[in-house]
Amino acid sequence: MTKSIIKSNYIPQETARRLSLYLRGLRNLKQDKILTVSSQQITRFLNITSVQFRKDLSYFGEFGKRGVGYDVEVLINEIEKILGTNVLREIALVGAGKLGSALLAYPGFLEFNLKICVAFDNAKTKIGKLCGPIKIEDSKNMRSAIKKRGIKIAVLCVPLEYAQKISELLVRSGIRAILNFAPINLVLPKRVFVSNVDMASELEGLIYKLSRK
Amino acid sequence: MTKSIIKSNYIPQETARRLSLYLRGLRNLKQDKILTVSSQQITRFLNITSVQFRKDLSYFGEFGKRGVGYDVEVLINEIEKILGTNVLREIALVGAGKLGSALLAYPGFLEFNLKICVAFDNAKTKIGKLCGPIKIEDSKNMRSAIKKRGIKIAVLCVPLEYAQKISELLVRSGIRAILNFAPINLVLPKRVFVSNVDMASELEGLIYKLSRK
Repeated sequence: MTKSIIKSNYIPQETARRLSLYLRGLRNLKQDKILTVSSQQITRFLNITSVQFRKDLSYFGEFGKRGVGYDVEVLINEIEKILGTNVLREIALVGAGKLGSALLAYPGFLEFNLKICVAFDNAKTKIGKLCGPIKIEDSKNMRSAIKKRGIKIAVLCVPLEYAQKISELLVRSGIRAILNFAPINLVLPKRVFVSNVDMASELEGLIYKLSRK
Repeated sequence: MTKSIIKSNYIPQETARRLSLYLRGLRNLKQDKILTVSSQQITRFLNITSVQFRKDLSYFGEFGKRGVGYDVEVLINEIEKILGTNVLREIALVGAGKLGSALLAYPGFLEFNLKICVAFDNAKTKIGKLCGPIKIEDSKNMRSAIKKRGIKIAVLCVPLEYAQKISELLVRSGIRAILNFAPINLVLPKRVFVSNVDMASELEGLIYKLSRK
């Protein structure tokens, strides 16, 4: 029997991250028309043990049948509900430079029901230009546009020196979660969630390990 | 007195990551012609406590003078030595799509003595094209080109379905560290270091927090 009662309201961030990986694995299995799977099958390509998988799921209730395994479709729906990706959410992108433009064309967001619906820049050469289906808007209109649409999530791709100031403006516009690509730890109210994607630091971590070997 | 003896051979990854942030803070201070700083000054814009900062440095020895603070230049050099970023390292980029092209133009790598010197793709429309100063090469020549140059670090920006196979080929070419942008946990020999940059998962983590609030 599948009990979908979420037992705990708080789960560690690493668990949420792994759930996201399980979801991808399950979607691939679904594409391959597989209806039922074991924990081993789900975790095989993810480099995660099946013990970890079962532990992660145990935060939310009981899924799967002993000796039968997990119903792929049901587990996808349950994990989407847990992660909150079962509803389409709009995102604003700020800074349509090289990285920003690449992200506007990045297909990975839609897979998780995330859709960049507005993009802003302050460069006259960029404003009004189409980047895929999105027209770059003047960052002067950022606050009103975000408020009007009630957008809660922003992707920040502005240069380092503007990141703090613009993130504060985003918060005043109603943004509650920021995916930050600027190599800086943003100082914002505790109620705002920030996730940093810092490629240089990641590479530095790799170099560190290489040079310690 | 500054003792630069590295006390420990192993430090947690999170410490290495923070060291990378300290380095940036210190470089900004150096640009502002500041010669000596307190731990509070270094950590102010990084959202890290000065207690954490001192704890992180304590892994490597004693830096700074009580009541005087830290010599900016000396500390920069010491952290660069610890991280291994005091020497220029060449990187290979695989997959010159939208993200790959953006990374080829990304100035953040050079800041850490990292230089993308070769890029590969298998699309005929891309091979031979210039992307900034780099000419895209046929991925058929990847193995020999990487071996010849003795490159140890690769940035992987290929579609999900090719990532595992190509990463294995990279390892056979002599690559020992991979910055992976494909949303998949690569299964590779333990001696190979992999760092994942997965924007969609980061965003999902944010959504999860937003929907739990």
